[in-house]
Amino acid sequence: MNSVSTDVLISEVGPRDGLQSIKSIMPTKQKHAWIDALYRAGVREIEVASFVPAKLLPQMADADEVVRHAKTLPGLTVMALVPNLRGAQAAIEAGVHKVTLPVSASAAHSLANVRKTREEMIEEVKKIAQYRNECAPQIKIEAGIATAFGCTLQGLVPEDEVIWMAEQVIEAGADETGLSDTTGYANPAQIKRLFRRLKAAIGNKAGAAHLHNTRGLGLANCLAAYEEGVTSFDSSMGGLGGCPYAPGASGNVVTEDLVFMFEAMGIKTGIHLELLFEARKPLQLGVPTEIIYGMVPEAGVPKGFAAATQWGT
Amino acid sequence: MNSVSTDVLISEVGPRDGLQSIKSIMPTKQKHAWIDALYRAGVREIEVASFVPAKLLPQMADADEVVRHAKTLPGLTVMALVPNLRGAQAAIEAGVHKVTLPVSASAAHSLANVRKTREEMIEEVKKIAQYRNECAPQIKIEAGIATAFGCTLQGLVPEDEVIWMAEQVIEAGADETGLSDTTGYANPAQIKRLFRRLKAAIGNKAGAAHLHNTRGLGLANCLAAYEEGVTSFDSSMGGLGGCPYAPGASGNVVTEDLVFMFEAMGIKTGIHLELLFEARKPLQLGVPTEIIYGMVPEAGVPKGFAAATQWGT
Repeated sequence: MNSVSTDVLISEVGPRDGLQSIKSIMPTKQKHAWIDALYRAGVREIEVASFVPAKLLPQMADADEVVRHAKTLPGLTVMALVPNLRGAQAAIEAGVHKVTLPVSASAAHSLANVRKTREEMIEEVKKIAQYRNECAPQIKIEAGIATAFGCTLQGLVPEDEVIWMAEQVIEAGADETGLSDTTGYANPAQIKRLFRRLKAAIGNKAGAAHLHNTRGLGLANCLAAYEEGVTSFDSSMGGLGGCPYAPGASGNVVTEDLVFMFEAMGIKTGIHLELLFEARKPLQLGVPTEIIYGMVPEAGVPKGFAAATQWGT
Repeated sequence: MNSVSTDVLISEVGPRDGLQSIKSIMPTKQKHAWIDALYRAGVREIEVASFVPAKLLPQMADADEVVRHAKTLPGLTVMALVPNLRGAQAAIEAGVHKVTLPVSASAAHSLANVRKTREEMIEEVKKIAQYRNECAPQIKIEAGIATAFGCTLQGLVPEDEVIWMAEQVIEAGADETGLSDTTGYANPAQIKRLFRRLKAAIGNKAGAAHLHNTRGLGLANCLAAYEEGVTSFDSSMGGLGGCPYAPGASGNVVTEDLVFMFEAMGIKTGIHLELLFEARKPLQLGVPTEIIYGMVPEAGVPKGFAAATQWGT
C-alpha cells in the first residue's frame, strides 16, 4: 500500500484540528489507534497534534507521545500545528517532519486570534525558519493563510493582502503556504481566482487548500481548487472540527466524502475507501459523545463503484 | 423583479418532487402561500404538481387547483410532472405551461418504477407530443433522463444508453431533455462527460441538470454542470424530497445553498436570497413535522456578502 501512485495528497487534520475543536478529550491510546487506522487506509500525511500549552488545550497535552507513535509508521509525514517559535521548538524536538503555522490575512482576525499583528506573525515565521535552518534543516515549514476568503470580524479580506501575506511568509522562510477558508466563506470562483494568484506569486511553493463546509460548498470548493491545479487538500475525518455553525453541518471538509469524490472522478488519492470508513470506528470510540459526519459512509458507495486508486493483491 | 437579467435558471421542484416524497400532506392553501413566497423571491419556474391518480399520491390530489393558482403569477413558468399521456392530458387541461416526463436510462429502473420498458416510455413521449401538437401546441414537453448516472438496481448505466435515450425522446417530440442523478451516484467528471455528450447529440435541446446530494456532491456536481455549459438547474427548497439515505442528508440539491453558490460566484440567478429564506416559513408551516435542510440558511450569508443579481430600488 506504500507504493501506490497518487494524483492528490489528502492531509488528514482530524487528530489536530478536529480534536482540539471539541470538548471531549480523546485518550492517547485511542489517538494512536485512530492514527494507525488512518494509516492502514493509505493516509500518508496526518496533522497529529498542536504544540500549545496544555493548560490552554488539554486535548493536546499528549502531543509529544502522539508524535512519537505516529513516527513509527513508515512513509507517514507527521505534522503538527505550532502557533509560535516555542511551539515549533517543542514540535521539532518531539520529532515531527513538518510544522504548520496559521497566519491570518485578516488584520482583525490576527489580533483577535493570536494577539499579534500580521507583521508580528511574519517575524515569528522568520524566527522559526532561522531555528529550523540551524537545528533541524530537514524539517519543513508550512504556513497556512487563515481567513484567506473572508473574515467573520472584518468581512472582506482584500485579495491583495492575502497574496502579500503569502509572499511575506515565503520570504520569511516558509517552504510552502496554502490558503485556508477558516470561516467557510469561500465560493468556487474565488477559490480559482486566489489559487491562481497564489501560484503566480509564489510558484511551486503554493500549498494546500484547507476548506470548510460551513455553507455546504466544501466539496465544490475542493473541486474548483483541483481544477486550478491544487493537488494537496486538508480535510478531517467525520468533518470533526472547524467552526460548525449549522446543525448537521460540519466545519472541515469530510475526508471520507472528499476521497470518494476524487476516487469516483478517477483521481487517485492512494486511500482505500472501505478501510477509511473502518477508521471511523476508533475515532467514534475515542470521542463517543461527538457526532461523526459523512454522507458517503452513511449512504454507502454507489453500486458497481470502481475507485481510481489501484491496489495490489 | 420581473425584469432582472439572469445567467442561470433555477427550477424549483419542491412543491412536486419534495411534497410527493414525504408522508405529510401540505394543505392546498399552504401550497399556494409557499409558491407565492417562492415567486416573491424571484423564482420563475416551479414544478408545482404531479398529475397522477390521487389514490397513488394523495399529496398531489389538488394538482388542478395548485396549477390554477400558480398561473395567476405573471411570468412564472408553471410545470407539472406527468408519468404518461393521461397525466399529460390532465396537466394540459389544468393549464400548465410545461410538462416533464421522467424516462429511465436504466432498463431495470424503468421496469421497476413505471412497469414499462424504455421503448414503451419513448412511445409514451410520442403520444404526448402528438396530443400536444394537435390540442395545445404552445405547451412545452421536457423529458428528464432518470438514473442517467447510475442505478441502485443495475449499478452502471452505460453512457451510450443514456445518450441514446435522450436522442430517442427528442426524436419522439420532446422539446428538451435533461439528465437526472436520481440515485445520487454522479461525480463531477461524469457530469461533465455526459452533459458534453448530451449537447453533442441534441444541441440546444439539452436541458436541465437535476442533481441529488445523497453523497454530499450535489453542489460540486452543479458546479461541474455549469462549467460544462448547463444553465438550467432543478433544486428543492430545504432539500425536500429525493432519496435521503443519510441522516442530515438531503436527496435533492437544496435551492437555498445552490442559489447562494451561484450568487457568490457572480452568476445571476434572479433570486433574492433573503426573500428565498423567507419562503422557508410557509414551507415549514405547511409540513411542520418535516426537517427542512439548508446550510446557508442556518449559517447565514458571509459578512459583507454581495449577491450577483442586481435589484432595482
